[in-house]
Amino acid sequence: MKMELNEFLISAEEFGQRTGPHDAIVLSSRVRLARNIVGIPFPGRADRESKQRVLETVQPAVESLPEMKSHFSGAMADLKAVEKQILMERHLISREHAAKGAGSGIVLNRDETLCVMVNEEDHLRIQSIRPGLQLKQVWQRIDKFDSELEAKIGYAFSDKLGYLTACPTNLGTGIRVSAMLHLPGLVLNEQVNQIIQAVNKLGHTVRGFYGEGTEALGHIFQVSNQMTLGETEAEIVERINKVVLQIVEHEATARRTLLEKKPNELFNHVGRALGVTAHAHIISSKEAMNLLSLLRLGISMNLMPGLERSSLDELFLLIQPAHLQQTCGEKLASEQRDLVRAGLLRKRMKGVKGVKPPPEPSDA
Amino acid sequence: MKMELNEFLISAEEFGQRTGPHDAIVLSSRVRLARNIVGIPFPGRADRESKQRVLETVQPAVESLPEMKSHFSGAMADLKAVEKQILMERHLISREHAAKGAGSGIVLNRDETLCVMVNEEDHLRIQSIRPGLQLKQVWQRIDKFDSELEAKIGYAFSDKLGYLTACPTNLGTGIRVSAMLHLPGLVLNEQVNQIIQAVNKLGHTVRGFYGEGTEALGHIFQVSNQMTLGETEAEIVERINKVVLQIVEHEATARRTLLEKKPNELFNHVGRALGVTAHAHIISSKEAMNLLSLLRLGISMNLMPGLERSSLDELFLLIQPAHLQQTCGEKLASEQRDLVRAGLLRKRMKGVKGVKPPPEPSDA
Repeated sequence: MKMELNEFLISAEEFGQRTGPHDAIVLSSRVRLARNIVGIPFPGRADRESKQRVLETVQPAVESLPEMKSHFSGAMADLKAVEKQILMERHLISREHAAKGAGSGIVLNRDETLCVMVNEEDHLRIQSIRPGLQLKQVWQRIDKFDSELEAKIGYAFSDKLGYLTACPTNLGTGIRVSAMLHLPGLVLNEQVNQIIQAVNKLGHTVRGFYGEGTEALGHIFQVSNQMTLGETEAEIVERINKVVLQIVEHEATARRTLLEKKPNELFNHVGRALGVTAHAHIISSKEAMNLLSLLRLGISMNLMPGLERSSLDELFLLIQPAHLQQTCGEKLASEQRDLVRAGLLRKRMKGVKGVKPPPEPSDA
Repeated sequence: MKMELNEFLISAEEFGQRTGPHDAIVLSSRVRLARNIVGIPFPGRADRESKQRVLETVQPAVESLPEMKSHFSGAMADLKAVEKQILMERHLISREHAAKGAGSGIVLNRDETLCVMVNEEDHLRIQSIRPGLQLKQVWQRIDKFDSELEAKIGYAFSDKLGYLTACPTNLGTGIRVSAMLHLPGLVLNEQVNQIIQAVNKLGHTVRGFYGEGTEALGHIFQVSNQMTLGETEAEIVERINKVVLQIVEHEATARRTLLEKKPNELFNHVGRALGVTAHAHIISSKEAMNLLSLLRLGISMNLMPGLERSSLDELFLLIQPAHLQQTCGEKLASEQRDLVRAGLLRKRMKGVKGVKPPPEPSDA
């Protein structure tokens, strides 16, 4: 009997309860590998039959690995639109993959930390994602998984070029190492563009995850490597890890600076976010992301007794359109979602008292 | 022994507790008369000595009238800047009068419903103000007061032109009849500019009390007569009263329409206003006026159990710069006022539960 996706997925509550190193600032660490099967055209060039052959080769091979002992496996053509969107909202598949139909598929492990997209831009896009800053652990794990899979599938590989990929930007290692960072302190301190420029100069990419610069939705930024050639995977992971640690340090300093130098502005931002979240009757997902971001900042600074980071991270997921519709058990138009979202947030914020400034450090 | 102004004034709480007909929409009714003493130049043309003479003639005459049995009487030169601003915030004196020094003065009755400015633009500006729609009562009272005063002071009067005034726009009756209206329903329904135009075409003046059109601060508008010639005072009062009653009807309809056609937008506006008022840490007086205006709307529509109109009207006064400084007992810079104002509002909103939609009318 085949399991439905929504029975397989962990709950938003469980999703929010996951923890990891530096998770007040680093939302998640991700490594993905682009791989292709030797002798078959890349998905963009392949006919339906070739793609089907890839799917039928890759899915059983992936499913047979120990990491995938319990898994969800499916063809994109069989998934409902809302299911695809839920996978997207959990960052398990790309927007491009969600748009795929016949010939494309996914295999997802039990705790949603490992996901293989079949026939996205490449035949295989293997990705591992974990909460907090765990790039090295994520890399070691995906490396082992990739080796086990390579023993079963003949990857397209050139001694001179490395792993062959549909797009030359992925050629060589085929690796994309990234971390999703929550940087409200740098945004409120008006330092984030400066940091972005500095990191980009080092040859990495930092950008708003859902928008540019200070306009980044939810103050969420993604750091990733630009180059996939000329360095080993371990070196790339090490470099991104180092950059992330530096940004984490800057963000932590920015938060301390806000509290020391502009406490009222900080309390005002966080307090207003609570007030609106607790009392609005219409909230778009974009506004909700920004409000929750400020509340998450408040929690990390002990300004919000009665509110837990895990609830916030659960809400980050629940306010997204597909999750909201799943919670309601029905399809909702955009205007209806804004009402339901506001209702959900009001309910969850009931009883939260307001910003409570931390006690002054005593001199004793 | 002379009484200090702050000992004489009624408390903001008492101020907020005053009621009047239609006070959910009509904040106050006001009539003022411009009068001058025969044989002395208008204040703009008078030398110091002449102005002093006017003050010494007018103040004792006013104080001797029965309405002024208990009164505050003072020279503008003797009032502190904060005291003048408090009188302005209570709409008892004009901004122009607050700027006056030697030779100008005021006499104010016990319940702050009757105030005479001496040497403002004219030698006397007599005004009576009451909460709600009470234009006729206010007119009758000020007419009686004016007659009693006229018996003691020789007014500058021409059989052809009527009462002579410094500015020709006041010539004749010297009367300005006005009502201060709270029109959030028309603003939210985007009908207010239409109403303003219609009323202006009738030859009256409607304008935002602290700003223009839909930008009017606190959704507060003032209706007043433009012409002071060619009609009796009673006719002018009657016409303004009629116009106000029509606007009141439009505003009431707009509020019902909001509740019936756009309830979620209404709850959203009022809810957000509550959320921000209850949780912000920095609020300017302008923003506070707009927030309190929306809460006052919510109260008038029974959406805000636990919050009374009288508290709102008290807060409208308390958040103004001079009242805020008087409450604190010290002079505060603008940034400090924004903090103190937010603190006051948070304290007052504690325990207010949020917007509670009224029960659906039952079919039974």
